[in-house]
Amino acid sequence: MHPAITYIQEKRDSFVEELKAFLRIPSVSTKSEHTGDVQKAAEWLTAEMRAIGLEHVQILPTAGHPVVYADWLHAPGKPTALIYGHYDVQPPEPLDLWITGPFEPTVRNGELYARGAVDDKGQVFMHLKALEAHLKTQGALPVNVKLLIEGEEEIGSPNLDPFLLKHLDLIGADVVVISDTAMMAKGVPGITHGLRGLIYFQIDVEGTKSDLHSGGFGGAVINPAFALAQILAQLKDRNGRITIPGFYDEVRKLSAEERRAMGRLPFSEKKFQKDLGAPALFGEKGFTTLERLWARPTLEVNGLVSGFIGEGAKTVLPARAMAKVSMRLVPDQDPAKIARLFTQHVKRLCPKTVRLKVTEISGRGMPWLAPTDHPATQAMARAIQKGFGKQPVFTRTGGTIPVVATFTRLLKVPSLLMGIGLPNENAHAPNEKLDLDNLHHGMLSAAHLWNELADTKLIRS
Amino acid sequence: MHPAITYIQEKRDSFVEELKAFLRIPSVSTKSEHTGDVQKAAEWLTAEMRAIGLEHVQILPTAGHPVVYADWLHAPGKPTALIYGHYDVQPPEPLDLWITGPFEPTVRNGELYARGAVDDKGQVFMHLKALEAHLKTQGALPVNVKLLIEGEEEIGSPNLDPFLLKHLDLIGADVVVISDTAMMAKGVPGITHGLRGLIYFQIDVEGTKSDLHSGGFGGAVINPAFALAQILAQLKDRNGRITIPGFYDEVRKLSAEERRAMGRLPFSEKKFQKDLGAPALFGEKGFTTLERLWARPTLEVNGLVSGFIGEGAKTVLPARAMAKVSMRLVPDQDPAKIARLFTQHVKRLCPKTVRLKVTEISGRGMPWLAPTDHPATQAMARAIQKGFGKQPVFTRTGGTIPVVATFTRLLKVPSLLMGIGLPNENAHAPNEKLDLDNLHHGMLSAAHLWNELADTKLIRS
Repeated sequence: MHPAITYIQEKRDSFVEELKAFLRIPSVSTKSEHTGDVQKAAEWLTAEMRAIGLEHVQILPTAGHPVVYADWLHAPGKPTALIYGHYDVQPPEPLDLWITGPFEPTVRNGELYARGAVDDKGQVFMHLKALEAHLKTQGALPVNVKLLIEGEEEIGSPNLDPFLLKHLDLIGADVVVISDTAMMAKGVPGITHGLRGLIYFQIDVEGTKSDLHSGGFGGAVINPAFALAQILAQLKDRNGRITIPGFYDEVRKLSAEERRAMGRLPFSEKKFQKDLGAPALFGEKGFTTLERLWARPTLEVNGLVSGFIGEGAKTVLPARAMAKVSMRLVPDQDPAKIARLFTQHVKRLCPKTVRLKVTEISGRGMPWLAPTDHPATQAMARAIQKGFGKQPVFTRTGGTIPVVATFTRLLKVPSLLMGIGLPNENAHAPNEKLDLDNLHHGMLSAAHLWNELADTKLIRS
Repeated sequence: MHPAITYIQEKRDSFVEELKAFLRIPSVSTKSEHTGDVQKAAEWLTAEMRAIGLEHVQILPTAGHPVVYADWLHAPGKPTALIYGHYDVQPPEPLDLWITGPFEPTVRNGELYARGAVDDKGQVFMHLKALEAHLKTQGALPVNVKLLIEGEEEIGSPNLDPFLLKHLDLIGADVVVISDTAMMAKGVPGITHGLRGLIYFQIDVEGTKSDLHSGGFGGAVINPAFALAQILAQLKDRNGRITIPGFYDEVRKLSAEERRAMGRLPFSEKKFQKDLGAPALFGEKGFTTLERLWARPTLEVNGLVSGFIGEGAKTVLPARAMAKVSMRLVPDQDPAKIARLFTQHVKRLCPKTVRLKVTEISGRGMPWLAPTDHPATQAMARAIQKGFGKQPVFTRTGGTIPVVATFTRLLKVPSLLMGIGLPNENAHAPNEKLDLDNLHHGMLSAAHLWNELADTKLIRS
């Protein structure tokens, strides 16, 4: 048994107590009243990093909340890994739905309840302890590591890209390791090798300069709510297929082997539907639910408003209607091209009887898909096999983590996504929790990862 | 010259000062903090009615704001007219858009600005002064009159129908006179002889039990906002024609003569469009704008909401979407039948992937259309000709006044709608006003009306 592994096994319980201290800090990045707490969490991290034996520990400013950086670079000839995570958390509200306080970490039935337990303090902590295990028992790491833990992930990382560009030399690495995702299910460890991209729009239509009486004017002018409904309704057909010309042109087809692999995953459509409380599942015809979620693009109405939305009746003919519409993209769709096609199509669909404005809001996210046979990915697979005692599965997720595409673009190195969250652990919701078995096996996997990576030939040329 | 007419001409300016006192009372029926003011307006009315020489003046309670009643019944063998109006007003907000205070009546350029100036205190006042002119100069009226001035019209008259049913004996009359509408334009006095009916629905669709992450779940379930847009978009075709099967079956066709008469009215589609600030007019193909507004039914989305409607981007897949949809009906459409057809059609259009609820809200309004050759209508036409010095035109309005259909049903007598408002007088909006020329000529017309009606054979058999 490797001494680092023994160390983690011996410290299993005391680690949970240490994590609680990190979770007690209400580092809610979106609320200005918590700015001091966000700073406190950054300081907790630096103290921890120093105690572990990391070097160059520093809090680096951005235009918003700071980035915490540390490294250990004494493994010449060995690969350098950049560990990315975030120490900020979502707001805990609504507070009355929490069984115990969001910042009073509590263990119930082998699960640790607190805001940030799984997203992402617990997963950051997992890496810190795996590093500690090596450094305390060996005085060294088998590879070089850098840690970059940001404080604005929950508000969309507005200052991260400028930070990365500014500190390109500092963050240079051979591989990126990110633990901010979930496994498919308990007992099914996995590696996420695909993410969808994202573009997001607001559509505004205006019929008249002000709201009108629906009796006095109904029938004389178009209803903008109706015009908008007609535009939206024409964006997808009855089979859930997006009708924007050229939208699917670059979509990378799933191979027969990929479809078989997805089909073998432990996923029950029936249970999934029941958990959501949906009368039925629905989506693009000819694909399974997992295929639709992971490998097919979508177009969703995220918001919609027009006219009177209070209780009761108001006979208003609205002047305006607005919709938020986003698309998740898959390889090899180009967000810029799809944004152009979408805008053109909406303009074409819009009747001349209203004024139209199509505005792209929020940053674009690139779709990302990594090969599963890359040496780094295979090293992580072996580490998870050893840490969890189970063969990991390869999964994708329908969501978007823009920083992955940024790392790919800036560093041109592979990213390894090992998430130890579970889908039902209430990230962003009341009663967020973390399975302590997964934390432990995740820590073991992380400790194994450095040994496995040390054996690969990952050094940048 | 009839002494009543001379009286009105002599008092023209002092009447405006008297009306200001009525307008100073902020009788906003929808706000409980104004309950005392609503009562004060009722008391102002009763004092005025007594001063004029009306009898049986009383404030009659309802479950809400009271009804003011008065009569003068000393013209045996002559018809009895029931004058209906309302003394409550719309809330004045937004206050910062008023040039002078909503309850500080001010004359500018021959127009009296105040909340309630045209809707409906000014028009009620017009009738009071026409009655006063007869009673003060002759000591008598040429006909019998009853006045029923309610205090809840601006909140949809929720307690009026029960009141009328309870006081059927009190309100019995040979003709109903209502002044709560508008003329087509300045210099174009008219009689409104048609109103559209109304039914109003809320449609709720639910996809999942709670909002979802649009990345994590987009593509797996239907989007309720999208499903609702698809339902709404299918309720009308591209030519503005409502697609509910059977919807037009009972719609009474316009005769060639009716279409010619409408075509002769002084109405400019171009000016109308410009005033509304619309890029184009739009509605059911094959009909003019006036025909569409007055004689064709409509279906309008009055409100629409789903998901995230704040600023910026939120990647939510909404659990629910809601729309308010109302229809204006024309003779001989039956609101009950159309309500049934609408509900069936929406259920048919709704995909099975969402849960649907269709709820009828608000009371139904019956469409109403009166012949223009009725002796009472002709009497009013002569009165307007004398009062305004101009031949009145016969118009309809696209709006709904449910009480007209109620009077028709309960009393089985004609209703005469003589409105002296103008379309641009901002009823329900900031800077509500009343043209003082129209007030004066309306008063003269109302005074003439009682003489003209006295000569008709209107007595109920």
